[in-house]
Amino acid sequence: MKEVARISAEKLKSFVKAALLKAGVRNDVAGYVTEGLIQTSLRGVDSHGVRLLPHYLEALKGGRINPDPNYKFKKTSLSTGIFDADHAFGHAAGMEAAKRAIELANESGTGHIAVYNSSHFGAAAYYALEVAHHDMIGMCFTNTDALVKSFAGKRPFLGNNPICFAAPCENEGPFCLDMATSKLTFNKIKQLGENGMLVPAGVGTNTEGVETRNPNEITALLPIGGHKGYGLSMIVEILCSMLTGMPYGPHVPKMFEAPMSEKRCLGHYISAVRIDCFQTKENFKKRLSSFMEELRSEPALDKNVPVQVAGDPEKKCARERSGQGIPFAPAEYEAFKKIALEYGIKFLGVSELNDTDNKKDREKSSRIF
Amino acid sequence: MKEVARISAEKLKSFVKAALLKAGVRNDVAGYVTEGLIQTSLRGVDSHGVRLLPHYLEALKGGRINPDPNYKFKKTSLSTGIFDADHAFGHAAGMEAAKRAIELANESGTGHIAVYNSSHFGAAAYYALEVAHHDMIGMCFTNTDALVKSFAGKRPFLGNNPICFAAPCENEGPFCLDMATSKLTFNKIKQLGENGMLVPAGVGTNTEGVETRNPNEITALLPIGGHKGYGLSMIVEILCSMLTGMPYGPHVPKMFEAPMSEKRCLGHYISAVRIDCFQTKENFKKRLSSFMEELRSEPALDKNVPVQVAGDPEKKCARERSGQGIPFAPAEYEAFKKIALEYGIKFLGVSELNDTDNKKDREKSSRIF
Repeated sequence: MKEVARISAEKLKSFVKAALLKAGVRNDVAGYVTEGLIQTSLRGVDSHGVRLLPHYLEALKGGRINPDPNYKFKKTSLSTGIFDADHAFGHAAGMEAAKRAIELANESGTGHIAVYNSSHFGAAAYYALEVAHHDMIGMCFTNTDALVKSFAGKRPFLGNNPICFAAPCENEGPFCLDMATSKLTFNKIKQLGENGMLVPAGVGTNTEGVETRNPNEITALLPIGGHKGYGLSMIVEILCSMLTGMPYGPHVPKMFEAPMSEKRCLGHYISAVRIDCFQTKENFKKRLSSFMEELRSEPALDKNVPVQVAGDPEKKCARERSGQGIPFAPAEYEAFKKIALEYGIKFLGVSELNDTDNKKDREKSSRIF
Repeated sequence: MKEVARISAEKLKSFVKAALLKAGVRNDVAGYVTEGLIQTSLRGVDSHGVRLLPHYLEALKGGRINPDPNYKFKKTSLSTGIFDADHAFGHAAGMEAAKRAIELANESGTGHIAVYNSSHFGAAAYYALEVAHHDMIGMCFTNTDALVKSFAGKRPFLGNNPICFAAPCENEGPFCLDMATSKLTFNKIKQLGENGMLVPAGVGTNTEGVETRNPNEITALLPIGGHKGYGLSMIVEILCSMLTGMPYGPHVPKMFEAPMSEKRCLGHYISAVRIDCFQTKENFKKRLSSFMEELRSEPALDKNVPVQVAGDPEKKCARERSGQGIPFAPAEYEAFKKIALEYGIKFLGVSELNDTDNKKDREKSSRIF
C-alpha cells in the first residue's frame, strides 16, 4: 500500500470514536465499532479496518444503520439464544452476541447465538478473539451479498461468506483463522488492476462465467477448491440465514451498491465452547502452542519463507503497527480529512507521525490482543 | 470404476455383518460398522465404503481395533461430554458419540462430544446425517495421519482432515457437505496414474515439496486454497487432537503403513445443534429447500452440467445403487471372495446380480437415508 501517513492506534481510536459520537451513535455502540476497526487495522486487515469509517458514516446518514438500537435477546435453551440487533452496527451486535455466548458457555459448557437484523460487522476475528480470550474456542460466521460464482453456475449467488475460528494458546495471542471462502477478494483484484497486473489463474470470471486473468473484466470471484469452497459458503449461509430468518445470497442488499437507506438485514452466528469441558486449560494451551511451534519449525520450501500458522502475519503486523502506527493510503487520508472538517474534530495530520513512539500509547495498543 | 459385479445393499449388509461377527466383533459394534460402510457405498463414496472391509479385518487380527470395547462416557457440562472409545471401530465410537450429542441437544439445545482412543470411522457423513435426521444441524470432524503438505513447507504434516456438516430439508434427504481439506485424494491420484493420465495443476507435490503433475511422483497432497485449506485442517486438528488429548499430524500412526498391532488413537469431534432453538423446524426446512432449489435452477455455465449443491451427487448415486446394487471392482471382488472362504460365509457371487430387482430389498435400502 502506498502510504502518506502513519497514525498511532490511540490517536486514531479517539478520532474514530469522536466521529461516531458526533454522527449520533450511542456511546456503547461507538465503543465497539471503534475497538473493532482499530484492532482490525492493527492486525493488517485493512479491507475491514478504519478505512471503512467513511462508508459507515454514509450508512448512518442514509438510515441504513440505527445509531441507537433497541436490542432484544432471548435465551432459547440452556446453550442457545437469538439476538435481534435492531439494525445496529454489526460490530456492536456481534460483540453483544459474543458476550452472551460466553455467558451461556460459562453456565452450560457452550453458547451459540444467532444474530438477526444486523449490518456489516467488519472482521469476524474481533468476536472470535474475544471468545478465545475467555479460554474458550470462538467461532464466528456472517453472510454477505452475492459475489462468488456458484460451482458450475454462470454468475454470483452466494457471498464471500467468511469462516472464523480462534483458540487460546500459551505465551502468545490466540490461534486465529479468519478467511473468506473465495480465493482472492475484489479489493486485491482491484489493486492488481491498478498496477497493470494479471490476476493468478482460477481467481475470477467475467459476465459470462468464464475465467479471465484480466482484473478489469472480473465480475465474480471463484471459491477455494471449486465445489468445496462453494459448499463451505453454503454452510455459512445455513447458519447465518436459515437459522436467523434473514435473506440469503442475491436477496441480501449490497454493501456499496444498495441505497444507503436500505437496511442490510445480515445474519451472524457466534459460538463459544469452553476448553475446560474437554481438557484442562493449561494442557490445551500448552499442546496448541507446541503444535504451532512444531509446524513453524518444519523445513520450508523456500528457506526465506518460513512455515507459518493462521494468524501469524496478523500478529506480526499488530506488533509492528502498535509501535509504528497505522498506515494511510492517499485516498483514505483525504477521506479522513473530510470527516474531520465535516464533524469538526481535531485533524489527524502528518505531524502526528512522530508521536507514535510514545511509550504509553504503544502499551495501550498492544493490550488490544 | 471397472466393475465385475453389482451386489444389493441388503445382501452385502448380511455379508459384512456376518464377517465382522465371525471375526469376533460384538453385535452392536458390528451393526454400526456395517450400516456405516453400506450407507457410504450406496452414496458412492467408495474410498470409505465396503471396500475397506478387508483392511478392517486385518486391523482386528493385528489387535489395532478392539472388538469388544468398554466405552467410558462422561458428561462434563450441560452441553458437552467426552467419550473414551477404548480403541473400538471408529464407526461404533462415532455413532455412540452422535447419539449422546443428540441426547444433550434434546436437554440443553446443543451437544458436543470429543471422542478419544478411537480408530478410522469411515465417512464423516454417517454421523452428521444421523444428527440431521433428528432435526438438528450435525457437524463431524476427525483427524487423520500426515498426508497434506503444510503451506510453505516441504513435506506432509497434517492429515486430509475432513469437515462434515448436515442439515435437514423439506421433502428430501439432508443437505450434506463431507469434504477432505485437500484438493484431491490419493485414491483419485492413483486412479489417474493407472490410466496414464496427468493430474490437474495444484494437486500434489514430490518428495522435495515441488508441485508435479505426474501422479507417480506425488508424495504429498496440496490443501484447497493454499493457506486457507491448511488453516481449515488446523481447525480440525485443534478440535480432534487438542480437545481430545490424542496425537496430531505426524504423530498419528498411519492407516496402512503402521503395524496392524498399533492402536491409531484418533480423535473425533461431533456436534448437534437443535434447529428449533432458532427457527421453527418447518420454516427452517422449507427455507433450506427453497435455497437449494434456487441454486439448482441458476443458469449453468455448460447447459449439460446443472448447478448442484453439496450432497446432490451422493443422493443421486444412492437412488441408483439402491435399485441396481453396489458395484465391485475386480480386486475388491477377489478380496471379498477370500473373506467368504476364510470366515466360511455364503459366497456373494455374480449370480446374485439379478436379485437386485427384488422390491423388498430396494425399499429397505432406501430407508437408510
